[in-house]
Amino acid sequence: MLVDFKRPSSHIKYLSSLTSDEWIKLALSNPIEILIDHAHCERKAAGVAVQLMFRYPSEPNLSEVLSPIAREELEHFEKILYFLKELGHSLKALKPPPYGAELAKNIRKDEPNRMLDSFLIAGLIEARSHERLALLTLNSEKESFKVLYESLLESEARHFGIYWKLAQNKFSKNQTFKRLEELSKIESEILAETYMMPRVHS
Amino acid sequence: MLVDFKRPSSHIKYLSSLTSDEWIKLALSNPIEILIDHAHCERKAAGVAVQLMFRYPSEPNLSEVLSPIAREELEHFEKILYFLKELGHSLKALKPPPYGAELAKNIRKDEPNRMLDSFLIAGLIEARSHERLALLTLNSEKESFKVLYESLLESEARHFGIYWKLAQNKFSKNQTFKRLEELSKIESEILAETYMMPRVHS
Repeated sequence: MLVDFKRPSSHIKYLSSLTSDEWIKLALSNPIEILIDHAHCERKAAGVAVQLMFRYPSEPNLSEVLSPIAREELEHFEKILYFLKELGHSLKALKPPPYGAELAKNIRKDEPNRMLDSFLIAGLIEARSHERLALLTLNSEKESFKVLYESLLESEARHFGIYWKLAQNKFSKNQTFKRLEELSKIESEILAETYMMPRVHS
Repeated sequence: MLVDFKRPSSHIKYLSSLTSDEWIKLALSNPIEILIDHAHCERKAAGVAVQLMFRYPSEPNLSEVLSPIAREELEHFEKILYFLKELGHSLKALKPPPYGAELAKNIRKDEPNRMLDSFLIAGLIEARSHERLALLTLNSEKESFKVLYESLLESEARHFGIYWKLAQNKFSKNQTFKRLEELSKIESEILAETYMMPRVHS
C-alpha cells in the first residue's frame, strides 16, 4: 500500500534528518502504544528539568526557567493520562527505546561542557518530539488524537528554544552552534541505527 | 533572654515530638537562610514525587496523584525564588542537614515494603514541614514572611494526607499505622540527635 503522509510546510532547522515514512506508518498503526510512550516522554522531560535544577542549584536564573518547564511537562503528562483513561487505557511500563541512553553517552563529564551538552541534548529531544507530534497531528486518523497532539506540540518547540537560550546565555555563540551541530548529527545517527519500535523516539 | 514563642492550638498527631524552642529561636535569627533552605525543600519534595513516578510507572492511580503534588511543590519553589529576589537575595547551595539521608536509610529494600516506607517518610517530612512553617508563620517578625509561610503551609498538611492515603490504599490499616509509628519515632530521634543548623529539618 502506498501512502502519502502529510508533512509540515516548515522544517526544524536544528534537526539533521527528517523522520522517515516508515516511522510515521509504524506510529499510526500503534496509536495507544505511542500515546503511552509519549506520556512517559513528558514524565522523563520533567525529570530532566528537575535533575538539572538539582545539579546546578546555585546557577543564576536557571531554576526560574527550568521549574516552569517541569510543571508544564507534568501538566501534559496528566493530560495524556486522562485522555488514555477516557479511552479505557492506562499508563503501563514500556520498554524504552535506546535513544535517551545513547544520547546521554555523549554528555561530556567535565564542567562546563557537561552543562552545555545537557542543555543541547534536552533541547534536541524536545525538537524531535515537536517534529514527530506535528506528523502525528497531521496524519492521525482520529480527530481527538489530532487535537491532543496539536495541544502538546507547541510547547515542545518553545522548550527547545528555552534550552537553546540557556546554552547561549552561558556559552559563546560559536561554541554552542558547533556542539549543537555535532550532537544533532549524533541524534540522527542514533535514530537511523535503532531497530524501530512504536515509540516517539525510535 | 526569655522568649515565649507562639504555638498552634492543635498538634499534628503523627509527629512523635514537638519542635523545640531552640529551633524556633535559631530559625527566626536566620530568616534568609531558612527561606533558601525551604526553597530547596520544595525542590526536593518535587524530586521525590517525580522519583516515585519513575519507580512505579504502572502503579494504578499513582502518577495521577503524584504529578499534581510535584507541580505544586515547584510552584512554591518558584514563589520563594521570587520572594528572595525581591529582597535582593537568590538561591544558593546550602549544606543540607543529615535529616533526609538519615530518614532514607530506614526505607526497606524489598517491595512492597519499600513503597510503604517511601510513602510514609515522604508524608512525615511534609508533616514536619507543616509544623515548622506554622511556627514560622506565628513567630516571624516581618509581616511579609508570615504571609508567605502561611500561603505555603496548608499544602504541606494536604500532601501528608495524600501520602497517608496512598499508603492506606495499598496496605492494611494495621500495617500502615504500625510502620508510621516506628518511622515517626525515628524521625523525632534524628532531629533530637542532629547538631542544630538553621535549616527547616534540623
